[in-house]
Amino acid sequence: MATKIMSAKTIEGILQKTKIASRIVAVLPETKKNSILRTIAGELIKNTGLIIKHNKLDLTCAKANHLTPAMIDRLMLNAERIKSIAESINDIISLPDPVGTVTEHWRRPNGITISRVHIPLGVICMIYESRPNVTIDAAALCLKSGNAVLLRGGSEAFNSNLILSKIVGSALERCGIPKAAVTYIPSTGREVIYRLLKMNKYIDVVIPRGSKAMVESIISSSTIPVLAHGSGNCHVYIDSSADIPMALKIAYNAKVQRPGVCNAAEKLLVHKRIAGKFLPLIAEQYKTAGVKLRGCRDTARIIKLDQPATEQDWPEEYLGLTIAIKVVPDIDSAIEHINKYSSAHTECIVTKNRKAAEKFLARVDSSCVLHNASTRLHDGGVFGLGAEVGISTQKLHARGTMGIKELTSLKYVVKGNGQIRE
Amino acid sequence: MATKIMSAKTIEGILQKTKIASRIVAVLPETKKNSILRTIAGELIKNTGLIIKHNKLDLTCAKANHLTPAMIDRLMLNAERIKSIAESINDIISLPDPVGTVTEHWRRPNGITISRVHIPLGVICMIYESRPNVTIDAAALCLKSGNAVLLRGGSEAFNSNLILSKIVGSALERCGIPKAAVTYIPSTGREVIYRLLKMNKYIDVVIPRGSKAMVESIISSSTIPVLAHGSGNCHVYIDSSADIPMALKIAYNAKVQRPGVCNAAEKLLVHKRIAGKFLPLIAEQYKTAGVKLRGCRDTARIIKLDQPATEQDWPEEYLGLTIAIKVVPDIDSAIEHINKYSSAHTECIVTKNRKAAEKFLARVDSSCVLHNASTRLHDGGVFGLGAEVGISTQKLHARGTMGIKELTSLKYVVKGNGQIRE
Repeated sequence: MATKIMSAKTIEGILQKTKIASRIVAVLPETKKNSILRTIAGELIKNTGLIIKHNKLDLTCAKANHLTPAMIDRLMLNAERIKSIAESINDIISLPDPVGTVTEHWRRPNGITISRVHIPLGVICMIYESRPNVTIDAAALCLKSGNAVLLRGGSEAFNSNLILSKIVGSALERCGIPKAAVTYIPSTGREVIYRLLKMNKYIDVVIPRGSKAMVESIISSSTIPVLAHGSGNCHVYIDSSADIPMALKIAYNAKVQRPGVCNAAEKLLVHKRIAGKFLPLIAEQYKTAGVKLRGCRDTARIIKLDQPATEQDWPEEYLGLTIAIKVVPDIDSAIEHINKYSSAHTECIVTKNRKAAEKFLARVDSSCVLHNASTRLHDGGVFGLGAEVGISTQKLHARGTMGIKELTSLKYVVKGNGQIRE
Repeated sequence: MATKIMSAKTIEGILQKTKIASRIVAVLPETKKNSILRTIAGELIKNTGLIIKHNKLDLTCAKANHLTPAMIDRLMLNAERIKSIAESINDIISLPDPVGTVTEHWRRPNGITISRVHIPLGVICMIYESRPNVTIDAAALCLKSGNAVLLRGGSEAFNSNLILSKIVGSALERCGIPKAAVTYIPSTGREVIYRLLKMNKYIDVVIPRGSKAMVESIISSSTIPVLAHGSGNCHVYIDSSADIPMALKIAYNAKVQRPGVCNAAEKLLVHKRIAGKFLPLIAEQYKTAGVKLRGCRDTARIIKLDQPATEQDWPEEYLGLTIAIKVVPDIDSAIEHINKYSSAHTECIVTKNRKAAEKFLARVDSSCVLHNASTRLHDGGVFGLGAEVGISTQKLHARGTMGIKELTSLKYVVKGNGQIRE
């Protein structure tokens, strides 16, 4: 794995080409964009052997660096996974093109008409870690939404990312589009990232996708607007009038089905009137699944905990088989607790009481709130958006799962016949 | 004018109260928000004498500091101006409440329904300069959109801003709402701003409105997402098939009607086939209005310039009676020039050729593009949005004039009956 140091001038040269390419992809018709995507999908399948060969270099390196088996598994590409990456491109092809869509149109007393039209963001810089499929997902989502993209993946996937982006580049060229429209930054050094984050002239948006520390470091260094994929300290609240079998199903699924991801539940809040009945049942299921239980004093009076929950637990994202439980006196306390400690990602209420549900859905200030459904459902694929660029936990531009529409902006288009300001 | 130094702890204490207040205003019904706004408008009129008295302190200070007559005029409040500020609140009352509006609603194969619902941003921090009416406009727009707001105006309007925000605060209290929902930061020191810009825990969005240097300094210091009101290097392009009387009317209005504002034209691009006819006519009108003319070599061959235009002219915003003119060989060169040098604010094409217009409107990458209408029309009031928070020249969240809808975000609201992730 070569660590190249790139000068500011070299980076600027790359970015200039990407900026020029962005003007070209911005105005491509949908049919052309889809045919580019089809070409990319075809080239990926055709080059399966080559991709696996380059991926092996990363795997060898990963083993030498003693990465965990889970991390190595995330890195690994085989024929089946490459086929599934190519298939995800087909999903993106089938999505409607947001570019050019008019969201509002009105006429003013002076006779001008005003439209708000979806346009591409321009040049998107994706900074991500780990799984090489993000390289293709990001390229496909950006192209479908008319954007050029700068890709900078983690050093552990350097060779895989590089060959994948080269394949995309040659597919673009075969379609008569400058390959700079999808540019992989071929440097594993950190300082290239910090240089990129000041290049406001060439980059419209930065999308970081990785650990909390990585995202925070990018937010604090960037002078370019950032669409941050945040961490998920997600809550499930079991209301006093919850259906207990449904509550068990949702609380179990939200924690156990895939505990290492951002939309898995990390906290369980239980109304005191149902805690005596519900907690022993869910505790048994959690223990069978190997979930470590932490909890407040009231919880400890009802079930046996692995350890008490401390103030440090409430804002924490475990990303593993641990959950912290709190018994709350009422729904207002549950809402207050969530708004205080949550990372504003995804929260769920289980209740048969419609009024309680409406209160929770309105007052919990998170990117996605669910009534009687698992937090694990907050996902671009499940929501029908195709692949997702990430899940935003901030409030500007996009909240929650981000699909191709979130990779566009709006422009005012005004038509008149000589109107001036009087 | 007192410069108070505020400790981080003092600031955090203020922000905690504003955050709590934001939860309250976020869920107020529209009728309640309108009655608060009516109370504020009434209190402003009732306290006209008091406001003028405090405003005089700023005016005295401004004269002592030798501010220009134009700047002093911008600061000055009299009974008529206070009445007009109160009336602008009535305009905001009449706007529909965006909060709770559902923009999309769909059902998935697993039976869940998904809605995207407009919600307030939360706590907005407005940092602005000069005119004290911004204090009331910002407070009213933020309240109508369910947001709490931290206000930090320029030191030159310190006393005026403070009394205006006190009047808002007492109106809020009379309506049973914590006055912290509209909080003026009572310090004129700069370092309080830099402390605020790191308070991600309490502030959701920063909106700077002021000079280019001020906005850039805030963007580079803030760890909180910024909605930047940018500068305007706006272009008028006169196409070969423009209607000459209309072109004269628009080019004149865009430059002369109010040259000191961001949507005034700074550059005039003229197609070479019409330059010989058009330039002498507009030059005569501009000269009569006192506009200084700069231009490229081709322009200098047709009309007499005050000075040649250099490379420094093309990206510059004069904010005064100066314009730089360039003769271009075709529409593509005009588009390329604009996309290279413009600040992406507002650009206009004058042409009778519909195809040329469509090309310009689609390819010019600015927040507002106009066909046969003056750049001066890009304005929240003219567009019918009521007052505006500013005009954004970035691409995330909002582009162009920003009204109350741009002070909201979207939240996914999911309803199910026990759905989990399989």
